[in-house]
Amino acid sequence: MPIIDAKPFHYDFSFDHVALVCIDMQRDFCQPGGFAESLGDNIKNLQPCIPVIGKLQEAFRKAELPIIHTKECHKPDLSDLPTAKRNRGNPKLKIGDKGPMGRILIDGEPGSDFIPECAPAQWELVISKPGKDTFYNTEFDDYMKLRKITHLVITGVTTEVCVQTTMRCANDRGYDCVLVEDGTDSYFPEFKAMTLKALVAQGGIVGWTCKSDALLELLAKEQPGQVSSATSFAA
Amino acid sequence: MPIIDAKPFHYDFSFDHVALVCIDMQRDFCQPGGFAESLGDNIKNLQPCIPVIGKLQEAFRKAELPIIHTKECHKPDLSDLPTAKRNRGNPKLKIGDKGPMGRILIDGEPGSDFIPECAPAQWELVISKPGKDTFYNTEFDDYMKLRKITHLVITGVTTEVCVQTTMRCANDRGYDCVLVEDGTDSYFPEFKAMTLKALVAQGGIVGWTCKSDALLELLAKEQPGQVSSATSFAA
Repeated sequence: MPIIDAKPFHYDFSFDHVALVCIDMQRDFCQPGGFAESLGDNIKNLQPCIPVIGKLQEAFRKAELPIIHTKECHKPDLSDLPTAKRNRGNPKLKIGDKGPMGRILIDGEPGSDFIPECAPAQWELVISKPGKDTFYNTEFDDYMKLRKITHLVITGVTTEVCVQTTMRCANDRGYDCVLVEDGTDSYFPEFKAMTLKALVAQGGIVGWTCKSDALLELLAKEQPGQVSSATSFAA
Repeated sequence: MPIIDAKPFHYDFSFDHVALVCIDMQRDFCQPGGFAESLGDNIKNLQPCIPVIGKLQEAFRKAELPIIHTKECHKPDLSDLPTAKRNRGNPKLKIGDKGPMGRILIDGEPGSDFIPECAPAQWELVISKPGKDTFYNTEFDDYMKLRKITHLVITGVTTEVCVQTTMRCANDRGYDCVLVEDGTDSYFPEFKAMTLKALVAQGGIVGWTCKSDALLELLAKEQPGQVSSATSFAA
């Protein structure tokens, strides 16, 4: 059973039942000229996690382990967009309106697409989700159960919004989740710091956090397609 | 349309479509000698919200508005308890074990029951929930839709765990939620403070927060059963 150093205590999992989850690494949230920047969010704060997620994706691919990518977006006819979400605060630019990178948060538009540094491989599952919680109104849970995945390595943006919401909902459903500390970011560093702390409080009430190095070193010792359940990295 | 002062901006709702939600005001979480205290959680930090929730319940009852109470607990046969939740951290006392107030977090046991200060009236809906998110594996969403409730006034414990998880999942489903700042508490005041801040960031990305006084003053002007959609309290 592979084991890595983590908070609040070591995290162990089986290579047969683990997946990397990359949450909302989309142009509109991460890139200059996107929707978030147009709203005044400081996208510089999201940049540090990008190369880390890129490295984790490379390592998981090399080890032939599953990667799931999510993107927050809505159907072009807005049928899955709650009125409350569209109108909150009566913004000048609403979801579905024409924005700097196509219609805002609409599936298939350039802005809702993944940044190239964290783009999915052709064979990897992409979940288009209408909410912050990846389980809500998506095929995520069915896919995980079908593939017998029980352990989620979570990365993405933003830490206190879609990332923690998904992790909390995964935890309710019995998944053992580890959030990669340097593989997630927020527009607000204080929210990221407190979220990391709250997730592992009370004996790991929501799960674990770890550093990407712990995972990368473990995976570097594996050969593609030859991962073994007997491998152990750290006690 | 009643309007109250709130963050990040005023909150409006209709008396026909609002409900008070009281999350997990259970003996095992709030009382001396309960499960939480046996785990080392500082239950003193949960006491301030108790009389506030009591007052809100009284006001909602007087105005004949719906109140929903949740409790985190599991079926006696543990069929709705994920193995990951039971075993996390290999605690000495596990869910389902005999604890200081009966079997821990089991529906019907004394510890899982409500504290008397915030107990439901006989006719009020009680949701027994196996997770932190009140929507997961419960009849909560169906009930709200049936009653045409679209606006949730949220209270309870703990702020960063069951309260925010429920509010985030309600927001995904299109509910407009306001969390009562002095009607919620955490064992960790720093988590409470940061959670209140994060929920209303980015233009109310998850919803609103308000003080109980704003709601109590509004409701004090209403007569039981004669609430009107035309009433306005503050601009």
